[in-house]
Amino acid sequence: METVGIGLVGCGTVGSGLVRNLSAANRLLQQRLGVGLEIRAIAVRDPSKKREGLPVPPGADWKAVVSHPSVQIVVELLGGTTESFEVAKAALAAGKPLVTANKALLAERGQELIPLAQKARVPIYFEASVAGGIPVLKALREGLVANQLLGLHGIINGTCNYILSRMAEEGSSFAAALQQAKELGYAEADDRLDVDGIDAAHKAAILCLLAYGFLPPFAKVPVEGIRKLEAQDVSFARQLGYVIKLLAVVRPVGSDRVDVRVAPTLIPARHPMASVHGVFNAVSLVGNL
Amino acid sequence: METVGIGLVGCGTVGSGLVRNLSAANRLLQQRLGVGLEIRAIAVRDPSKKREGLPVPPGADWKAVVSHPSVQIVVELLGGTTESFEVAKAALAAGKPLVTANKALLAERGQELIPLAQKARVPIYFEASVAGGIPVLKALREGLVANQLLGLHGIINGTCNYILSRMAEEGSSFAAALQQAKELGYAEADDRLDVDGIDAAHKAAILCLLAYGFLPPFAKVPVEGIRKLEAQDVSFARQLGYVIKLLAVVRPVGSDRVDVRVAPTLIPARHPMASVHGVFNAVSLVGNL
Repeated sequence: METVGIGLVGCGTVGSGLVRNLSAANRLLQQRLGVGLEIRAIAVRDPSKKREGLPVPPGADWKAVVSHPSVQIVVELLGGTTESFEVAKAALAAGKPLVTANKALLAERGQELIPLAQKARVPIYFEASVAGGIPVLKALREGLVANQLLGLHGIINGTCNYILSRMAEEGSSFAAALQQAKELGYAEADDRLDVDGIDAAHKAAILCLLAYGFLPPFAKVPVEGIRKLEAQDVSFARQLGYVIKLLAVVRPVGSDRVDVRVAPTLIPARHPMASVHGVFNAVSLVGNL
Repeated sequence: METVGIGLVGCGTVGSGLVRNLSAANRLLQQRLGVGLEIRAIAVRDPSKKREGLPVPPGADWKAVVSHPSVQIVVELLGGTTESFEVAKAALAAGKPLVTANKALLAERGQELIPLAQKARVPIYFEASVAGGIPVLKALREGLVANQLLGLHGIINGTCNYILSRMAEEGSSFAAALQQAKELGYAEADDRLDVDGIDAAHKAAILCLLAYGFLPPFAKVPVEGIRKLEAQDVSFARQLGYVIKLLAVVRPVGSDRVDVRVAPTLIPARHPMASVHGVFNAVSLVGNL
């Protein structure tokens, strides 16, 4: 059976999850796709760090991974927007399809990257960058291709949704719920990307790209996180028949503008999105058809 | 711009909706797909019936549509499992991709049709046959391709969900809610396909095909509809913290069997599927990754 070679740049939480799951799913993928997938080269920042279960020994030089003769697809999982951009650029220049889960890269530097990909006629795939397992990007691009999107709302940051769920269910303070999220590994030590809404805004920008064909200038996207919410806000909301969710909104305003924003939002308790609890995500789309 | 020719066989509610929406969405589709779509031949059972807005005059002979030299794709919207099967077979034999929304055809005669398509190497597309606008079939086939499905639950008959919602919200009897559904055009005059669960079972069989690679023998799928439910059942359920939904279930049992069934089911009131009201559908998938 034909096998496609993958080069992996970055092997932190997401990368090691990919290694583990690809190995577990490989036989199923072969059956369903008719080709095998094999990780043939890996680059990491610190190759001396102890890692288990890697299919090949990792090196420090990502350029060697991108130019490796039996690597056909480059998977960028470094995070950040600087080195990852160089990796992406090199992959496109080498004519190798790029797969990335890096929302920050796409949202903040997609303006530069997408024209490079178009010019090189090399695809960039990023399904996993928004809403984890919800296949919303493919749905926007293909399944709903005949629809004008009238609006899109999403709970797309699991950490914030976990914190808000604890506050709603147990009357916890924001600080206590954040602490729980950290203990469970749902929140990073540096909690700002999640809690202040930046991560959700990155994802909203990517959803805007797929729904409306352009990336909003990221610095102008209004973003409000959940850090200022108090237990009282949550309980007042409930008394009024609402729950508070950190919502990303992408919707057309008039005929030539699209509103993209992230903010804590009151949702009627009976709306399906109000019952999305814990670290789960949800995306609601309305099309004209 | 290149244009792809469509031949339409059957032009009832779904077909006339396709004609209307294709015309409205055509410019957007051209932009997004890079090709135009044009309905070039139509066959209907009764061409003398008055119809408005058709792009070409309809004829009575579906064979002329399938063999029409500028038709590249055949769309079968006749319903039923007899004539529609002949249409499908002829399209595959002519090497023309088949698009169908006909769940009954796929669930009851897919065993015959799919080998024909494989032999002819001609695709059959049927995204719209299950759960309307929810792009679940594509997600199963592509987005979740690395997952073993551990279970699938769906509210996939809008008529039943509308009836159950009225019973839950207004304490209506089954008969009164069914009458409302008919007045609003949600239920057919012959309500058996919907109310007795057959339509949901057709869709469950198709979901099984995509999730597990085979069609269950349709006559053996256990099906229970909602006709015997009383207002009291619904209100007792609520007192116990549940709502009643007509649920289709597809899940593996042990390592070599898949359980496919349709039945009214108690769902905890706080589960997201419990807040799917009215004619809306919902599908919940659990994968091993």
